[in-house]
Amino acid sequence: MSAADDRSSVHEPPAPVGLYEPFISSGRLIALSAISSARGGRLVTGKVGRDLDLEAGRAAARNAAENLLAVLLDAVGGEEARVEQILFVRGYVNAAEDFPAVHKVIDAASELIIHKLGERGRHARTALGCATLPNNNAVTIDAMAVIAG
Amino acid sequence: MSAADDRSSVHEPPAPVGLYEPFISSGRLIALSAISSARGGRLVTGKVGRDLDLEAGRAAARNAAENLLAVLLDAVGGEEARVEQILFVRGYVNAAEDFPAVHKVIDAASELIIHKLGERGRHARTALGCATLPNNNAVTIDAMAVIAG
Amino acid sequence: MSAADDRSSVHEPPAPVGLYEPFISSGRLIALSAISSARGGRLVTGKVGRDLDLEAGRAAARNAAENLLAVLLDAVGGEEARVEQILFVRGYVNAAEDFPAVHKVIDAASELIIHKLGERGRHARTALGCATLPNNNAVTIDAMAVIAG
Repeated sequence: MSAADDRSSVHEPPAPVGLYEPFISSGRLIALSAISSARGGRLVTGKVGRDLDLEAGRAAARNAAENLLAVLLDAVGGEEARVEQILFVRGYVNAAEDFPAVHKVIDAASELIIHKLGERGRHARTALGCATLPNNNAVTIDAMAVIAG
Repeated sequence: MSAADDRSSVHEPPAPVGLYEPFISSGRLIALSAISSARGGRLVTGKVGRDLDLEAGRAAARNAAENLLAVLLDAVGGEEARVEQILFVRGYVNAAEDFPAVHKVIDAASELIIHKLGERGRHARTALGCATLPNNNAVTIDAMAVIAG
Repeated sequence: MSAADDRSSVHEPPAPVGLYEPFISSGRLIALSAISSARGGRLVTGKVGRDLDLEAGRAAARNAAENLLAVLLDAVGGEEARVEQILFVRGYVNAAEDFPAVHKVIDAASELIIHKLGERGRHARTALGCATLPNNNAVTIDAMAVIAG
């Protein structure tokens, strides 16, 4: 997918829900804050495996990944080619105790990131099931990446 | 706030509660271990949203942030000016299931860090609600930062 | 322990359980995905403090650390001397609510890493108790490290 295609799909990601920045870069390293799946102010809330099924969780993860990439694209001034490599993605699922498939939820985010960025989107990853997340969001995702100077 | 002011408020942060270091630096990158809100050996324990209310959680988060900054100041030999940028803060709240305000708990930590370090204290952030934390602490906080060589 | 000794103990770590890489490096920084304690396809599942006791949790953490180091050794082409420093280890315990000893679980991982790598294995660390983990694993561990170019 070309940078032009990506730009055409860029939307306004949700603003931080507290006293932090959407991203901070230093040198070529960039830290991307955990972001929710909110789209147009609509949150997806509740626990996956209790209030939401796997597919609903995956849809939320996909949207969170789109939001994360919108922040990243903004961080590089819209020049997608300046994204050198996604290093680490962490995916947080507001999950029912013993829900066995948080990795399948976060796979939907990983898939989107790799689809958009190709090899540069391949990443190390950690998926966790959490007791709760900000505003009872179902899924949030954060990342570290390397960008061209 | 000047470095001199900061030094005057420096206290002894709690020691690691296991086989790890308070911080590790390599080049200009520094990793700061999760630290509790303990002050003078007194822990704040329990779940926010069950055993502790929001304000008690925020007070713990504020203390944890002070402890984190005390470790960071120690890491730069007391020269606060060598702290270039806080990159990433992660805030962990021992939270009741479905507690909706873990971000408001961690905002108290973010506020303290920004108050102490100004622009250099602005950070990317992730806030999580956990099933439990070491020693049943209510809040722990870790960070990555960039320091001058 | 020499590199030769280490090589002799190298085993095949478990493959990723989703659409991510075991590790990603960029420059001298390497991100290592969360890895389970699986050995020969056998997972250790369940909650520490409910289904597993502390010692069983520690055994899982130790195995997860061995798996993590096997990935790291693979990442440096088997040349252990190219591992310069472990920066950050995060240990995730699938833990019963209020279980007070997640740090003691993860200490078993830290001990193994320091035993294998000496000073270069000393690390900053965060230990968390999670509501659930991928495939109901009892323990997973991820890391950031610095390697020689």
